[in-house]
Amino acid sequence: MAASAGPEIERLISLLAKLPGMGPRSARRAALALLKRRDQLLVPLAASLAETAEKVSNCSVCAAPDTRNPCAICADTSRDNALICVVEEAGALWAMERSGAFRGKYHVLGGLLSALDGVGPEQIRVGELIGRAKAGEAKEVVLALPATVDGQTTAHYLAEKLAGAGVEVTSLARGVPVGGELDWLDDGTIIQALRARRPA
Amino acid sequence: MAASAGPEIERLISLLAKLPGMGPRSARRAALALLKRRDQLLVPLAASLAETAEKVSNCSVCAAPDTRNPCAICADTSRDNALICVVEEAGALWAMERSGAFRGKYHVLGGLLSALDGVGPEQIRVGELIGRAKAGEAKEVVLALPATVDGQTTAHYLAEKLAGAGVEVTSLARGVPVGGELDWLDDGTIIQALRARRPA
Repeated sequence: MAASAGPEIERLISLLAKLPGMGPRSARRAALALLKRRDQLLVPLAASLAETAEKVSNCSVCAAPDTRNPCAICADTSRDNALICVVEEAGALWAMERSGAFRGKYHVLGGLLSALDGVGPEQIRVGELIGRAKAGEAKEVVLALPATVDGQTTAHYLAEKLAGAGVEVTSLARGVPVGGELDWLDDGTIIQALRARRPA
Repeated sequence: MAASAGPEIERLISLLAKLPGMGPRSARRAALALLKRRDQLLVPLAASLAETAEKVSNCSVCAAPDTRNPCAICADTSRDNALICVVEEAGALWAMERSGAFRGKYHVLGGLLSALDGVGPEQIRVGELIGRAKAGEAKEVVLALPATVDGQTTAHYLAEKLAGAGVEVTSLARGVPVGGELDWLDDGTIIQALRARRPA
């Protein structure tokens, strides 16, 4: 880093470099863009971050970040309380919402079980999920966890834990993604898509 | 974008997406990372941006962003006033400073002449450069502009404009970069490196 940029700019660059997808070089470019577009970008972004830090917190029911508590989804009475969709992070929740296909409620785990990273059930919101499942309103828990080792470990663990809670536990289907060319798909996906084949 | 993320988070995502190298998807990931690491990242970044917006301005001599005016480099009496290095943006200035090879002063143009983008000499700090060159202290103006069409157009224009200012005008050498394999170099670089060959 350039000593000449001054401690304030150096600090900004090192913070920007911590964002996912950013490194020291791209953070420098971002800092430059911010300095160059002070009124269109630097000032609004500072205000937006401050507002987010002040107003946004995690919903006490589902843990999704929102300005309201309970969040807009948990407070939405038109949505189905009988369905709880379990996601790793809010990003997955947003993806589900973009699809428009789910009209139930959510539960954000805040991570996945991981032996490698030392994440146990206490570090993610498993207890809260069991509590919601046992509370009575929920009839089905849809596990929308990533198709990775940690995602599947977590799914198995949750299915086991939820066995006695009186809810049906389901998972998102595996198969060929829309637009997916068989040529480019991995063996695992093809095997699962073949096993789960349906009448055309 | 997900409607459910709330207007504050949506606004943050759309601002982050304007940073160079960021798109809508990576901006969402960045927003998530910020929300997840509130105390380590969100709050410090908001504060850093606010501090930068408040304290950092462009030096009235060379236009480099700094908390001081004149900037630390312009105010440094140990640096050679006889040398002025002309750069497009502060990023290039920082790169020059990291090299540690230049001990003169700088002049940040704030852009390059571009017929395509409609950038003329009035939009960049050409007049200020001529003024500094004519002021008497400067003996050499080093053009450290990018080896692009716009960079070279700007260099030619500046060389012409500075012809009557009583300063020597030089450019960074062209050639094979350190670590550069000839296999991967473009023809233009090889031609220029060959033309400028020196005794080994």
